[in-house]
Amino acid sequence: MFQSFDVTADPSQGIARVGKLRDAMAKSGLDGYLVPRADEHQGEYVAPSSERLAWLTGFTGSAGAALILNDRAVLFVDGRYTLQAAEQTDPSVFTVESLIDNPPRQWIAENAREGSRIGFDPWLHTIAELRALRGKAEARGIELVPVAENMIDSIWEDRPSPPLAQARIHPKDRAGELATSKLERMAKTISEAGADCTVLTDPSSIAWAFNIRGQDVPHTPLALGFALVPATGRPALFLDRRKLDRETEAYLTQLADLKAPSSLETELSAWAGTSGAIGLDASLAAEKLRLVVKEAGGRTTDLDDPARLPRAIKNPTELEGARSAHRRDGVAMARFLAWLDRQEPGTVDEISAVQKLEACRSETGESLQMPLRDISFDTISGAGPNGAIIHYRVTTRTNRMLRANELYLVDSGAQYDDGTTDITRTIIIGRANNDMRDRYTRVLKGLIALSTMRFPKGTRGMDLDPFARHALWQAGLDYAHGTGHGVGSYLAVHEGPQRIARTGTQVLEAGMILSNEPGYYKPGSYGIRLENLIVVEPESAIPGGDIEMHGFETLTLCPFDRRLIDADLLSPEERSWIDAYHARVRETLAPQLDGETRAWLEEATAPLP
Amino acid sequence: MFQSFDVTADPSQGIARVGKLRDAMAKSGLDGYLVPRADEHQGEYVAPSSERLAWLTGFTGSAGAALILNDRAVLFVDGRYTLQAAEQTDPSVFTVESLIDNPPRQWIAENAREGSRIGFDPWLHTIAELRALRGKAEARGIELVPVAENMIDSIWEDRPSPPLAQARIHPKDRAGELATSKLERMAKTISEAGADCTVLTDPSSIAWAFNIRGQDVPHTPLALGFALVPATGRPALFLDRRKLDRETEAYLTQLADLKAPSSLETELSAWAGTSGAIGLDASLAAEKLRLVVKEAGGRTTDLDDPARLPRAIKNPTELEGARSAHRRDGVAMARFLAWLDRQEPGTVDEISAVQKLEACRSETGESLQMPLRDISFDTISGAGPNGAIIHYRVTTRTNRMLRANELYLVDSGAQYDDGTTDITRTIIIGRANNDMRDRYTRVLKGLIALSTMRFPKGTRGMDLDPFARHALWQAGLDYAHGTGHGVGSYLAVHEGPQRIARTGTQVLEAGMILSNEPGYYKPGSYGIRLENLIVVEPESAIPGGDIEMHGFETLTLCPFDRRLIDADLLSPEERSWIDAYHARVRETLAPQLDGETRAWLEEATAPLP
Repeated sequence: MFQSFDVTADPSQGIARVGKLRDAMAKSGLDGYLVPRADEHQGEYVAPSSERLAWLTGFTGSAGAALILNDRAVLFVDGRYTLQAAEQTDPSVFTVESLIDNPPRQWIAENAREGSRIGFDPWLHTIAELRALRGKAEARGIELVPVAENMIDSIWEDRPSPPLAQARIHPKDRAGELATSKLERMAKTISEAGADCTVLTDPSSIAWAFNIRGQDVPHTPLALGFALVPATGRPALFLDRRKLDRETEAYLTQLADLKAPSSLETELSAWAGTSGAIGLDASLAAEKLRLVVKEAGGRTTDLDDPARLPRAIKNPTELEGARSAHRRDGVAMARFLAWLDRQEPGTVDEISAVQKLEACRSETGESLQMPLRDISFDTISGAGPNGAIIHYRVTTRTNRMLRANELYLVDSGAQYDDGTTDITRTIIIGRANNDMRDRYTRVLKGLIALSTMRFPKGTRGMDLDPFARHALWQAGLDYAHGTGHGVGSYLAVHEGPQRIARTGTQVLEAGMILSNEPGYYKPGSYGIRLENLIVVEPESAIPGGDIEMHGFETLTLCPFDRRLIDADLLSPEERSWIDAYHARVRETLAPQLDGETRAWLEEATAPLP
Repeated sequence: MFQSFDVTADPSQGIARVGKLRDAMAKSGLDGYLVPRADEHQGEYVAPSSERLAWLTGFTGSAGAALILNDRAVLFVDGRYTLQAAEQTDPSVFTVESLIDNPPRQWIAENAREGSRIGFDPWLHTIAELRALRGKAEARGIELVPVAENMIDSIWEDRPSPPLAQARIHPKDRAGELATSKLERMAKTISEAGADCTVLTDPSSIAWAFNIRGQDVPHTPLALGFALVPATGRPALFLDRRKLDRETEAYLTQLADLKAPSSLETELSAWAGTSGAIGLDASLAAEKLRLVVKEAGGRTTDLDDPARLPRAIKNPTELEGARSAHRRDGVAMARFLAWLDRQEPGTVDEISAVQKLEACRSETGESLQMPLRDISFDTISGAGPNGAIIHYRVTTRTNRMLRANELYLVDSGAQYDDGTTDITRTIIIGRANNDMRDRYTRVLKGLIALSTMRFPKGTRGMDLDPFARHALWQAGLDYAHGTGHGVGSYLAVHEGPQRIARTGTQVLEAGMILSNEPGYYKPGSYGIRLENLIVVEPESAIPGGDIEMHGFETLTLCPFDRRLIDADLLSPEERSWIDAYHARVRETLAPQLDGETRAWLEEATAPLP
């Protein structure tokens, strides 16, 4: 299993560990210390050695920060983690605050004493974060002090070692473009921006630029490291050689000077002394890098990670891989859903469903000779009211039976060599009531609205987001999350800069993969989410039109639950879309299925009544 | 007539006037001089005494700027004015550049000589403009020099006097809120922002805050002036007393210290010396004001004009006035359209149509005892291909007959004491072809999509704009302008901050009036635009919904041309909306109409076939 269901909360250690940290603070002359849930690379998943926030507080969510003062300790989490944070931490030690409404920068400015010295590890905060923190704090006479060694590491006795998992070449027939070509394109971007070099800090950028994949963190095939990419000349790649077999090392040596991660500071200092501007992405790069350049007398300039946009625009090989991965994933989903439909209500629980789904993916990968490398995130498996918890993680304590006449929401994905998948379906166990059918159909209408959209060049993700909500709005309903995130190509399942959301300012370009996942949540009762991955198609002409338009190709191949569709709520065009989509799913998947699953699929994809 | 059709272009004077300006520049040691189409208040309409750009260059458009160097003269205009600028100016003197793609700040940085000194009148440029200009120019060693007296005024011998039109009280039964209450609300905003006072520079803000209306510029009932509004204490109003009759002067004296506009500098200097921060709206306030404060040793801070948002949110009295103004305007439009339908094709031209429409408004206002104070902008009256010119202004030279089987687009509005109107209808003269009907119906579908929209609190104008385009996008079509602008209450027909457009970041609040005006333009053939004014309704519950939603109330009452509607393209809901809207128009207007017009209206508002 790539997922655990353990109850990881352990509030009991907090009091002792915070005590130790305060002793360390006192020795360093600090009045406070910041502990973010972040590593040096600002990724969504971090290695166990970087789970400092969880170690200190007990809180295991994927975003948050703690601020430890001499007399108070505050844990900042966002809305989805408020309950979890309260359960996982000791209330006599920690106060829980909103990371969104009252973030550390604001809390510090309003609550810390004038003259306080608050320490932080400059490797774990971005340049932009520090700008915001400093702006507010310094206006109130509070000093933010970068510390040389992380203070948690100094008191964490059995801290795991940093990961050293094997990295592999991601070959040209999967990547579609040689690393040399990608590095050339990036050098051009850096040069055009007037910088002499940049530091790649996002391991996704290194994986993309050098065509390698690793296993250092869960669910995303990353090899943690840095790269120094100059506008002209040879890049330097800071990656522990122990992660490389001979072939991979030989390959990378052709592309870059291979250096130890520990030498990055020295190398960057040397660059800073001799070069013009060093580009850093303020929202990704560690404050530490800026300090190193500054201390060496060099100059930094804001520069978006030059891999970010080209990585988001998939090439034809990557798109072919994505289609192939989705056919395979569709077979696994059909096997799973057919199996689920054969079980009696009340005999399957959330955990056994996750286990069965992973087994279906694993077996399908084996039989189609493209093994499941990982799941792309912890499966969200929510029965009845648990489905209404948007970021639900099932544990042995919360595990619930899939009961008759309740909805079951399952959001999952896979990592294959040829692509990353992410799919959500909502299923009725037993019989649906009218309320469920109405809401399900409105969510489906939102998904169809995006699926059938044609839009001009220059349209941003934010321009399309409201279409996915319109059918819900008409009934006084909405959902409190974005409609779509970017998805990598055998890389991170959450990838920028593209998104379909209120904040989606990035223009949608042909080749970008996004999720299309409207939802509806009735707290205490049920959750509905439907998710397909879609690709922005090249502009093409509409007969009689003036301008060429983009559209979306749907990658995901899996039936929607026809028992939950109220066909009377659909327009003729929407019915046609569903029937055509189901026909495509049937025709594509049926040849790969066993007889029992094929029979199920025939029924599941029959035209709407 | 409130509108002229004269050909105002006179390119012949440019060469001599630019010569005189260059002599003046030489005497002042300047290498260049900026002449924007702006007055001290940054309004859309300016008084003849502020038409410096037109005087110098011949160009009469409503936006633009000239930069005069020793050896070159550049006129910057936006896309809608490119042709007009070329016609109106002498090509041996002026080069025309794009105000959008290559604005003065960029042009200067890329073309002016290092060490150049470029003069500008700091009364005619905003603080934000100067920030942008300076940033680029100073990086290249170019100095921007504020001049004490406007250099055009020093050479413009027969320059008209600044306007001194009579201002009047806008009474409480129209304004709905006493000026004392508005001034209190503003003082609170200023205080909460940490400022000691602010300068109102937008005459719309003064008109709103003090409940007065004037006649200093065309089409918007403004009295030009400034106000200094403190966080505590009595405001000062800088308004020429010659504009005030005894009653208005007595009224204003109760609210503020009345002072001569020429004393603003001295008063502001005095404030600067004794107060904390002086708030200035960087996108509205003249750079001059910032300089005055700075020279007096004071401090400025960015502060949005505190009248801007409250002015946009109309109170119940203003909304009742708007409804009343639109009923009256609907009667005038019905009379006009009925008259137009009775004329033989080829007997009415664009100018006579404008004259007839103004006469209908004027007569209707007389008969309903609410006189037409002005039109709210120069009527756009475009037959056939002229309809495709989005900001077309008909002159005696461009005037065209309304010919058989051509479309006619008419975009017009009125200023009444109780409200401002703005309406566009597109009419077929004779018979429409299928192409016209298809496009017209798609534009109408866009208008209906907004009219029927329900949306959650917090929705911004930009979130709704794409809905108005969706039916066009599906056919590979679009339009190159925003969908809606804010509209004042017997004030400016273009009012911020609300808009429905790609750039509409302002959240839509109950009581805001906006236009809803999608279009389609086929250059060389025809233009289609349909425009109603709409008001954001208070949030209300939808039965069975979770959250209360806003919607729109439609103010404009005038039939759409049924001969141009392809009912097969409409959904059942869209047909119902049209029929219900037409029934409402008929029931509301019929009692006010003469028999001939009423008979026309019956037919024009019959249910769709």
